[in-house]
Amino acid sequence: MTGDPASALAESVRRLIDATIRTLADDATITSARHQIDSLTTQLTADAIPGSFGVQHRDGMSPVAGNVVIGTRNAIAPPLTIHHHDDGGVWTDFTLGAGYEGPAGHVHGGVCAMILDHVLGAAVHQPGRPAVTGTLTLRYRRPTPLGSALRAEAKIRESDGSKTFVDGRITHGGAVTVEADGVFIFPRS
Amino acid sequence: MTGDPASALAESVRRLIDATIRTLADDATITSARHQIDSLTTQLTADAIPGSFGVQHRDGMSPVAGNVVIGTRNAIAPPLTIHHHDDGGVWTDFTLGAGYEGPAGHVHGGVCAMILDHVLGAAVHQPGRPAVTGTLTLRYRRPTPLGSALRAEAKIRESDGSKTFVDGRITHGGAVTVEADGVFIFPRS
Repeated sequence: MTGDPASALAESVRRLIDATIRTLADDATITSARHQIDSLTTQLTADAIPGSFGVQHRDGMSPVAGNVVIGTRNAIAPPLTIHHHDDGGVWTDFTLGAGYEGPAGHVHGGVCAMILDHVLGAAVHQPGRPAVTGTLTLRYRRPTPLGSALRAEAKIRESDGSKTFVDGRITHGGAVTVEADGVFIFPRS
Repeated sequence: MTGDPASALAESVRRLIDATIRTLADDATITSARHQIDSLTTQLTADAIPGSFGVQHRDGMSPVAGNVVIGTRNAIAPPLTIHHHDDGGVWTDFTLGAGYEGPAGHVHGGVCAMILDHVLGAAVHQPGRPAVTGTLTLRYRRPTPLGSALRAEAKIRESDGSKTFVDGRITHGGAVTVEADGVFIFPRS
């Protein structure tokens, strides 16, 4: 959580997303909620960044606050916080709720892919020099549970010119649920 | 859009997610919005499905309404509508906004992976017999733009016992942005 009020708002919107999926309220309550939300959206967008968020450089705002995986202002993002080991590896601990469901009670395989793409990339990024994904391969070993502590981690295996080879995984209680390896590229700028 | 009021609510929550990312409203407006949203969340969850949505079988509710890719009640989902060709192939047309951003102005590579995992799986699923992802490989050919018409499509290449091999892609204006191939498995039940 940053001091940015919009990041606190996003945290509330995450709970609203979850509530919208799970609610059994009567139709009148749901429809009333919808009208109030539409009114709030109108207020919030009276002055707004046009189009997408992009990389913002404003006081007190993370430049990647809109990112779909790590962005504190983006209610779609869990959001992940990426930590760096001294040896160059990266890791993040997280728990996913109803909003990320695929098979009943389990994280959608595509959400695991999204998280691993980001975490593997984070092992490659250098300050001011973002890498882009060239190839990503995912091997699904066992179901990834919702509502349980998960870890994603990644580390560079080898660098060869403009290509960087990275390995990573999602684990639950120490057991691998999804393995990933990727080739990342530094675009010529 | 289904007749389910919660699906209409989710559509409004999608606009709120976008507004939360892009808003430049003053702190008092944002904080007031947050308090109102917290109040709505409390009302909506007074009677709610515990835990995750799961596969629901209730009158007038899609059994996969909570799914993170296609669920009409899930505001994280675009949501995609999957169409089936007579030859077994599947396709879906969609446009993604600020909520799905990675690099400035572009769809996060992980979101492309999430969508392709789902669309390739949809080419394999049989009624009452869902397939799970075994391996998924993604090749990123060019950036995928936000705010533009995109198509994702997939088709079975080969079936061999319990394994089904599927190819797919995301295209923008006919040009491939991300290619995918996957191996899907029917779990022994």
